[in-house]
Amino acid sequence: MTYCVGMVLDKGLVMMSDTRTNSGVDNISVFKKMFHWAVPGDRILSIMTAGNLATTQAVISQLEERTKAPGDRDNSLLKAPTMFQVASEIGKLLRETITKTQEDNGARGKGRFTASIILGGQIEGMEPRLFHIYPEGNFIEASFDTPFFQIGETKYGRPILIRGYDKDMSFEDAVKLVMVSFDSTLKANLSVGLPLDLMVIERDTFQAGHVRRISSDDPYFQSISSSWGDALKTAFHSLPNYSIPDK
Amino acid sequence: MTYCVGMVLDKGLVMMSDTRTNSGVDNISVFKKMFHWAVPGDRILSIMTAGNLATTQAVISQLEERTKAPGDRDNSLLKAPTMFQVASEIGKLLRETITKTQEDNGARGKGRFTASIILGGQIEGMEPRLFHIYPEGNFIEASFDTPFFQIGETKYGRPILIRGYDKDMSFEDAVKLVMVSFDSTLKANLSVGLPLDLMVIERDTFQAGHVRRISSDDPYFQSISSSWGDALKTAFHSLPNYSIPDK
Repeated sequence: MTYCVGMVLDKGLVMMSDTRTNSGVDNISVFKKMFHWAVPGDRILSIMTAGNLATTQAVISQLEERTKAPGDRDNSLLKAPTMFQVASEIGKLLRETITKTQEDNGARGKGRFTASIILGGQIEGMEPRLFHIYPEGNFIEASFDTPFFQIGETKYGRPILIRGYDKDMSFEDAVKLVMVSFDSTLKANLSVGLPLDLMVIERDTFQAGHVRRISSDDPYFQSISSSWGDALKTAFHSLPNYSIPDK
Repeated sequence: MTYCVGMVLDKGLVMMSDTRTNSGVDNISVFKKMFHWAVPGDRILSIMTAGNLATTQAVISQLEERTKAPGDRDNSLLKAPTMFQVASEIGKLLRETITKTQEDNGARGKGRFTASIILGGQIEGMEPRLFHIYPEGNFIEASFDTPFFQIGETKYGRPILIRGYDKDMSFEDAVKLVMVSFDSTLKANLSVGLPLDLMVIERDTFQAGHVRRISSDDPYFQSISSSWGDALKTAFHSLPNYSIPDK
């Protein structure tokens, strides 16, 4: 499995992904699931992937090739005029990649090799935007009502995001929030694992502003992980007490 | 879906279940998923069910009949000498019920009509015990290392249980804890719904000590739901701040 969160704030975008891949519990590996492309002054695009690793690597490799091959350059991510068109192009590539592997495998391929993508970014003159791209190639965009997307193992870390998110929060608070969400997920599910990749994209900078890999010995993540347990217990004990009447 | 939690404490057992059943989002109903049988001074047995409603109702009806039909009385839950044998009997009945409906439906029945059960209870002279019974009829028992079981939509409410559980906690704190766990789940997933059923089984009493239905207008549940949001925010802000270095 995988866990990735992308979040839109007034100030920009925050993206975080884990790096664990597994094929059964006895075959786990570390693979990067976050990728970005930037054109200074023009655009920043960041992608996080979940699902079949061969599919997502194929998609990323093809996107990477398109940004480099001179003949194809006009079709590339780096020339599309809007984030909507970038999302459409990535969705089409994702669907084609999945469909091809499924067809190559005939009846055995049915329903397999799927993957999802979170795309965040900003193109000059427009707002920062965040998309959730489905294996079918279509996609939805984050909005005021649903300002963050999760892919992969989304459930454990969702309640704190729902409760803690605020669109005018600082990047520092937003990073803290996604770290708590990841910590809850890591504690509950072996298929999500450290290290984590973090990227902060400040509005109108068109670059990956703060890119970090957070490993298990990261002192800040360790302090969040240990103090969140205590803070939760304190929060829990601050709630009104239940009373059971005497029989 | 469904959400049920059963928990073993030093003091006894706490069980809580929701009541929502759905067949698609446009067909939701309220059905009780918690049932109990008591023989004063001898035993208390409590069951919570998740999965196909026709399956679980058939299992409960058959268990109920067995406790009443005079000829079958020797085979009943109310005579089995240990909780292990009670769990075995329920597991067998669950597997047989599922298998029969699957076979009646031929190829279309494959993999369908499954259900799971949490069984908690105590028989005189023995410890309170808690079991998770699978559709296959086999089961596992809660232990020191894993002192609670969840069935149904388990993930949203798991992190707080992991963080908040303490085996020597009071019943009042345990009820508060499961309410917070349910609140997180209700906030995130439409397939889990109020009202909730609560049962507290105090060690060596052999009766359902505190049985309540918690509806949406329950003042205590409302106060937990609203103050937990605030308490989480306070907890979140009490964590050390992340710092993003200047570029």
